[in-house]
Amino acid sequence: MKKIINEPGAIVEEMLEGMILSYPKLIKRVDDSRVVTQVAKVNQVGLVSGGGSGHEPAHAGFVGDGMLQAAVLGDVFTSPTPDQILTGIQAANNGQGVLLIVKNYTGDILNFEMAMDLAQLEDISVEMVVVDDDIAVEDSTYTAGKRGVAGTVLVHKILGDAAREGTSLTELKVLGDRLVKEIKTIGIALKAATVPEVGKPGFELSDDEIEYGVGIHGEPGYHREKIQPSRVLAEHMVTKILTDGATKPKRVGVLVNGMGGTALMEQFVFMRDCLDVLAKQGVEVAFTKVGNYMTSIDMQGVSVTLINLEDESWLESLNRSVETISW
Amino acid sequence: MKKIINEPGAIVEEMLEGMILSYPKLIKRVDDSRVVTQVAKVNQVGLVSGGGSGHEPAHAGFVGDGMLQAAVLGDVFTSPTPDQILTGIQAANNGQGVLLIVKNYTGDILNFEMAMDLAQLEDISVEMVVVDDDIAVEDSTYTAGKRGVAGTVLVHKILGDAAREGTSLTELKVLGDRLVKEIKTIGIALKAATVPEVGKPGFELSDDEIEYGVGIHGEPGYHREKIQPSRVLAEHMVTKILTDGATKPKRVGVLVNGMGGTALMEQFVFMRDCLDVLAKQGVEVAFTKVGNYMTSIDMQGVSVTLINLEDESWLESLNRSVETISW
Repeated sequence: MKKIINEPGAIVEEMLEGMILSYPKLIKRVDDSRVVTQVAKVNQVGLVSGGGSGHEPAHAGFVGDGMLQAAVLGDVFTSPTPDQILTGIQAANNGQGVLLIVKNYTGDILNFEMAMDLAQLEDISVEMVVVDDDIAVEDSTYTAGKRGVAGTVLVHKILGDAAREGTSLTELKVLGDRLVKEIKTIGIALKAATVPEVGKPGFELSDDEIEYGVGIHGEPGYHREKIQPSRVLAEHMVTKILTDGATKPKRVGVLVNGMGGTALMEQFVFMRDCLDVLAKQGVEVAFTKVGNYMTSIDMQGVSVTLINLEDESWLESLNRSVETISW
Repeated sequence: MKKIINEPGAIVEEMLEGMILSYPKLIKRVDDSRVVTQVAKVNQVGLVSGGGSGHEPAHAGFVGDGMLQAAVLGDVFTSPTPDQILTGIQAANNGQGVLLIVKNYTGDILNFEMAMDLAQLEDISVEMVVVDDDIAVEDSTYTAGKRGVAGTVLVHKILGDAAREGTSLTELKVLGDRLVKEIKTIGIALKAATVPEVGKPGFELSDDEIEYGVGIHGEPGYHREKIQPSRVLAEHMVTKILTDGATKPKRVGVLVNGMGGTALMEQFVFMRDCLDVLAKQGVEVAFTKVGNYMTSIDMQGVSVTLINLEDESWLESLNRSVETISW
């Protein structure tokens, strides 16, 4: 394993120090914790997300005005503990309650729920929205049901904007539950991530193989085959999303997300091919974004996320500006 | 070679289509050209940059209000041709002239100078600022003198801000020439880039080796050795920059730039270690930025750039907001 790190066990602490030192106007750290909060004061429902580290810029990169008020960092690919999440809830609460945005992984759900119980004992109102956008597989490693992946970033953005506009906790919960049903993602890997403390890739692919349907922790997907041209990958993946539900969406937003080790050049070629498939299918595209937003350390691969923009206000929320490191 | 592409020879065209389709509010394309221009109308000196493709998000990702008015894309790691650069100059000119920001590579200098001559025949005032921030080597492959690398992005930002504020072409040329002397970069590679049309990495490093002083095209550096912890790399690289000139800067901005295939997690750890070295050396840090800004396709590695912020207005220019895809 060749990585620009010090001791593998220190990587989350040192990364966190690096983030805080690099962006002190945007984010700060709750003392003696793995919690990153927004520097600017706000008067709204607080949005808190988090999960294992290794998905940078998620989640701390999305802390700031118009997105998250706090992010809680676990160890690499490991849920943060309930006490850390509770610290995040306390920090984000301004008396209007806190909404948790959680990716659907068994460990995360368990710990965020426990933190929610602890917060309620302190009379903080807390609700939780669970993102399960990955349509690749049901009940995979680490997860009951579908997994939460890159679409989570769109949930941060839309709910973050709604919260800034003064939406109440109860309304945000309703909006969030409606929203997550309309977001679908599928990913591929060309090379698995190497967790620093493990020292080798999570799974092996040969020189011409890719894996369809991988998650963001190197969980297995549903199909392994020889790599195809980008347009064939796009055709397969976009069609799989469009045919996943009962009705095909009329208008979508598209997020092409790099997994950490894939060149932006490839991501733009892949986006072009995804847009081509959508045009041929008669689906209007109203929002597009390309880059590394929900990574899997240094995994090579991409995911494509479609959000059904049935609600005009969701598009407005996606387009409104924010003050974060990475949106 | 495993990449998410179609035909290797089509990659620049398809990437460009992907970029334009993804960000139509920010950038557009001059018909039948490899030139990307700003959508918003401006009344100022036009800033034009460009160079070979493969450095994404540079340069098209920095086109927009407050940075560049046009970017010209060459083939992968190949200078754009004079006629394409001339098209960029024509598109960026609003009657107040055009400033070219060019990285110091022999091919780029030759073609940008030729385009400058052609533009002057059309009575367009053009000046050129050459960025040669890479202190690693003199007179390497492709370059007479020092190479231009990640520091170029800071030149785009500061000159772009000054141009938006109404600075004249003559003043921008003076400012640019002063600025480039105060920006220094050094990079390392853990794995070389794979050019799609070549199909294999530009050079081979063994499983525990790194190369100090590489450029952004996989040119050789000055030293190869076993990888060391991030703090040792940071110590070596930052010290080399600080001792490069006659006097150590009192206050700097720091850009840690990922080469395309290196996880953001590692970049933040490395930034932390660079800041630690600077603190021990008594150098104040007033600006920090971390991410993939001037990449070398999928190269694994990082560079660190220090800008001597002797001039307060340079810091203000770095901090002012812009409307681009990638700053």
